Amino acid sequence: MHVLIFGAAGMIGRKLVQHLAQTGELAGQAITALSLVDVVPAERPVGFAEKTSVEVLDIADPGAAARVIAGRPEVIFHLAAVVSGEAEADFEKGYRINLDGSRHILEAIRREGMKAAYRPRLVFSSSIAVFGAPFPEVIGDEFFNTPLTSYGAQKAISELLLTDYSRRGFLDGIALRLPTICIRPGRPNKAASGFFSNILREPLAGREAVLPVAPEVRHWHASPRAAVGFLTHAAAMDLKSLGARRALTMPGLAATVAEQIEALRRIAGEKAVRLIRREPDPVIAGIVAGWPRTFDARRALALGFRPDASFDEIIRIHIADELGGSVPVPS
Amino acid sequence: MHVLIFGAAGMIGRKLVQHLAQTGELAGQAITALSLVDVVPAERPVGFAEKTSVEVLDIADPGAAARVIAGRPEVIFHLAAVVSGEAEADFEKGYRINLDGSRHILEAIRREGMKAAYRPRLVFSSSIAVFGAPFPEVIGDEFFNTPLTSYGAQKAISELLLTDYSRRGFLDGIALRLPTICIRPGRPNKAASGFFSNILREPLAGREAVLPVAPEVRHWHASPRAAVGFLTHAAAMDLKSLGARRALTMPGLAATVAEQIEALRRIAGEKAVRLIRREPDPVIAGIVAGWPRTFDARRALALGFRPDASFDEIIRIHIADELGGSVPVPS
Repeated sequence: MHVLIFGAAGMIGRKLVQHLAQTGELAGQAITALSLVDVVPAERPVGFAEKTSVEVLDIADPGAAARVIAGRPEVIFHLAAVVSGEAEADFEKGYRINLDGSRHILEAIRREGMKAAYRPRLVFSSSIAVFGAPFPEVIGDEFFNTPLTSYGAQKAISELLLTDYSRRGFLDGIALRLPTICIRPGRPNKAASGFFSNILREPLAGREAVLPVAPEVRHWHASPRAAVGFLTHAAAMDLKSLGARRALTMPGLAATVAEQIEALRRIAGEKAVRLIRREPDPVIAGIVAGWPRTFDARRALALGFRPDASFDEIIRIHIADELGGSVPVPS
Repeated sequence: MHVLIFGAAGMIGRKLVQHLAQTGELAGQAITALSLVDVVPAERPVGFAEKTSVEVLDIADPGAAARVIAGRPEVIFHLAAVVSGEAEADFEKGYRINLDGSRHILEAIRREGMKAAYRPRLVFSSSIAVFGAPFPEVIGDEFFNTPLTSYGAQKAISELLLTDYSRRGFLDGIALRLPTICIRPGRPNKAASGFFSNILREPLAGREAVLPVAPEVRHWHASPRAAVGFLTHAAAMDLKSLGARRALTMPGLAATVAEQIEALRRIAGEKAVRLIRREPDPVIAGIVAGWPRTFDARRALALGFRPDASFDEIIRIHIADELGGSVPVPS
């Protein structure tokens, strides 16, 4: 099986590549070719380098996606995007990459199918940013999309396109609205959501972290490992039961900041918790107040998508996958 | 006030032009210039010809919309589209006109605003085709968009774009999801929804009409006059109260075919009703079964949009506006 990943050098992309290289298979079939595409060169996975090709291209360039689709991969992961903050700061760039880029990929697939029968599986990473406040307490599967960012609008539009291209038989697509990824590896960044990861990752590494919101703030989380599980499950499952409704809210773990901190205390002790400094930031608190808190993702659950079991598990996954299995700070 | 209409030669466009020319004003201001744009030359309204300019262009051509937006109209009606059947039959044409065309208009406005401050009112005619079965019995204002046609997808995408461009301050937009227009003037066409109008318009003119579905079939209707009322109200109202939710389902009149026929009987008598020939068509019945029946359009009602009062009124409007005030067939 030939697998192609757009956005292979991003955080989720790298995790997915690692996973595919380790298992060597997807949807019960051996991976014979792995094409990694991004605007920067993606890393070839150890032990899988000979089956891997790396292509540097920008999906916003018309014709670029067609070059790699010409290889007729059976499964395509579309994870390429500029993030929320950048799409908001640079209106034109956001639309060029997050809308035109998605459309170029869909069109490249449709046009490839005009040469000879071709209907690949397309797994698209969408976002809960397709939703916008005011929300009901729990957001159900039939709640409407009213994004409050250009990024959210671009994701919602890409979902509609993917659904229509699927209905027309050009491809077999599914869009997954990923929860906020926690614990996000790497250094703290300026994303408004960064603190959800910072307050765990930094203390686990013996460093201070800033908490800008109240402990009562509730949010919707998934570990990087759960996200990779969503993507590979979506690549393998029978999509017939989705009917014409191909965008799914993924089951996350709803947790308050206080619950996150309690989990940290159980796993890394009081000393780690003491590294969290409360520093209320009304701007960040305001942004976060407009975010969804809890979903009833029953469609995805019924289709076999599995959330993290607890925040303890989310922390243990980070320790296993990023910290070599142990916590530097003793409790 | 300068008013521009994209799609001025279409059915609703012509009705709107007539209305604006008759009243000579919009949103309480005298209309000093009326620009009519379509792919065919729109008719200059009687008594308003000297204030009217007619432009033939295709919004799918990049740069075409910018030519007329350069006139900096204060109010823009965007009614241009290829219809549902055509967008389904010709995939590329549907996207070129209903998606790229809408985007060209939005971009032309945004770019005009980069030269000097410009933030026109944009009223866009969307459609209940943004919804797709299965439905709840009554569709509320927060029900999600899962279109089952390319036309519906294109309308839903245009709504998202208009909303994001409005949120960013490039324009002041509102999208109206129009009910099925009844009684549609002109000759019977091949649209699957045509019979809702045919079974009234044809008997009123002394001609036979075919009814392909059961009398129990319920649908969501608005007269051409009500549709024009929606558009002019949307051009005049304060949009602040809409917040970031700028797509509204318009209040239609929910009626069964049997109720339509009863209204015809009351107004034009038994002889007219006898001109309706039952000829069940399982294909049309199947298509219609997938359509929405009833909405709870409470947001639009609260904002002052007014539906037709009854099917008797819908028929009387047709008689007044299309038949010179009298019915050729005596009861």
